[in-house]
Amino acid sequence: MSTAGQVIRCKAAVAWEAGKPLSIEEVEVAPPQKHEVRIKILFTALCHTDVYYWECKGYTPLFPRILGHEASGIVESVGEGVNDLKPGDHVLPIFTGECKECRHCFGATVNVAKPKKGQTVAVFGLGAVGLAAAEGARVCGASRIIAVDVNPRRFEEAKRFGITEFVNPKDYDKPVQEVIVEMTGGGVDRSVECTGSVQAMISAFECVHDGWGVCVLVGVPKKDDAFKTHPMNLLSERTLKGAFYGNYKPRTDIPMVVDKYLNKELGLDMDKFITHSVPFADINKAFDYMLQGIGLRCMIHLDA
Amino acid sequence: MSTAGQVIRCKAAVAWEAGKPLSIEEVEVAPPQKHEVRIKILFTALCHTDVYYWECKGYTPLFPRILGHEASGIVESVGEGVNDLKPGDHVLPIFTGECKECRHCFGATVNVAKPKKGQTVAVFGLGAVGLAAAEGARVCGASRIIAVDVNPRRFEEAKRFGITEFVNPKDYDKPVQEVIVEMTGGGVDRSVECTGSVQAMISAFECVHDGWGVCVLVGVPKKDDAFKTHPMNLLSERTLKGAFYGNYKPRTDIPMVVDKYLNKELGLDMDKFITHSVPFADINKAFDYMLQGIGLRCMIHLDA
Repeated sequence: MSTAGQVIRCKAAVAWEAGKPLSIEEVEVAPPQKHEVRIKILFTALCHTDVYYWECKGYTPLFPRILGHEASGIVESVGEGVNDLKPGDHVLPIFTGECKECRHCFGATVNVAKPKKGQTVAVFGLGAVGLAAAEGARVCGASRIIAVDVNPRRFEEAKRFGITEFVNPKDYDKPVQEVIVEMTGGGVDRSVECTGSVQAMISAFECVHDGWGVCVLVGVPKKDDAFKTHPMNLLSERTLKGAFYGNYKPRTDIPMVVDKYLNKELGLDMDKFITHSVPFADINKAFDYMLQGIGLRCMIHLDA
Repeated sequence: MSTAGQVIRCKAAVAWEAGKPLSIEEVEVAPPQKHEVRIKILFTALCHTDVYYWECKGYTPLFPRILGHEASGIVESVGEGVNDLKPGDHVLPIFTGECKECRHCFGATVNVAKPKKGQTVAVFGLGAVGLAAAEGARVCGASRIIAVDVNPRRFEEAKRFGITEFVNPKDYDKPVQEVIVEMTGGGVDRSVECTGSVQAMISAFECVHDGWGVCVLVGVPKKDDAFKTHPMNLLSERTLKGAFYGNYKPRTDIPMVVDKYLNKELGLDMDKFITHSVPFADINKAFDYMLQGIGLRCMIHLDA
């Protein structure tokens, strides 16, 4: 029996308070309104952004809240004006949009930091996002991929992602950007910041070579953060930019990436990102793994 | 009689103390050492960088000092190891180098902020550098060129440089970047910062459109300045970069620009930048013009 147009009751893991375990309970979900879609979520993973919004350190608390934006599922029903999705479609929710009509949606898609063959790359943060950046650099033929992380447990598993050198900022009594500049005789060609720490962003920018270095910010900052650097670091011809989803457009580009993954055309080994798996009832375990820095992605099975 | 290899005596305008009038006196100039060239300067202009180093506000005082880096002249003699210049060559001194052998000197020359036809551009600072940026935008076919300056006297003469709109930050009780974002329905496509004020740099960056906006810093900052912005302004796909000489390489590119100017191939009207002219004895007048914001470039004739 179709549930379209009706309020439905679903299980959800609800965050009621900052940092407190999620509580699995029944919630009511309204039918999709104009330009909305209702999705039956089948799987989700966690990333540090979930942890930030759950712990609310440096964010405005907003509770109750249902987390889990790294999800996938099936369209259950669609609201008025939705013509390009129908019940049964497999979808990934994405936090940017693409109407294909406005100025935002025109223009060529750019792989922001794409290094040239033989170039050097620094990756800040060895979570799943940083390792994905390293994997991308490896596939592009980077000659050196230098990883920066304060958690040395990450280093062993990270070798599988093409990383050639590790730097733990805690091992040095000078800023990590100076360490990298010395290691590389002037700085790396590209850097990618994947932690969201504003200090790491500054280090990532200041460790790229003058004249041509490009730093890309990917990690999500806190509400009151300020990126700060001497303007001369920019005048000496460094470039600083940022991106969500590596500038992939959600409707034009992401389905193509998924197809390539399914057809094993990517040249990337994506499965190594999934290190743990739990049924929905154990979602708090997934938070524990992330807080303790264990593994990369824990797949949460909503139907299990 | 050749003066090569000898100490020579020349007239120079010497700054002995911060902000005090220059004193014209005879100085001794040593013969050029290894990889050095001795140039007979014929003309020079002043820019605000001279004023900064002369006033020493926010710089370490370094006196006595002979200013005047916007110069041109003729090679008088060359030191050991100089093979590509000879006495009599017409030259412009440049504060970057190009050996054509190192990594810095490879790679394509890029016009950093080059707008596409129809795009909108904001230019911060209506000195000669800002007006040159506006002129460049005009030649590229920018649809709107919005100039920002706190000196409204600049506005009338700036119209000749293709500027279509003027914003005086003093006329508003909100940050000028917000004014520009409102004027343009989201921000300009490109901005160029030509004042060296760190607050103007921040405004120039924050007034470009998210998704594709590019801000280029050109103005020279002070010693202790800090560029500061919320990292989310970068994550929403703005690009921040800087350049000296618009990324023109001194030996590969600048002679080509000079030839194009001499052959009137530039499509640019360069002569309108020179608004005043004084003999060397009146060099302090050129400083007065600059301090009072009168005119654009004052040509100082060293032989007159």
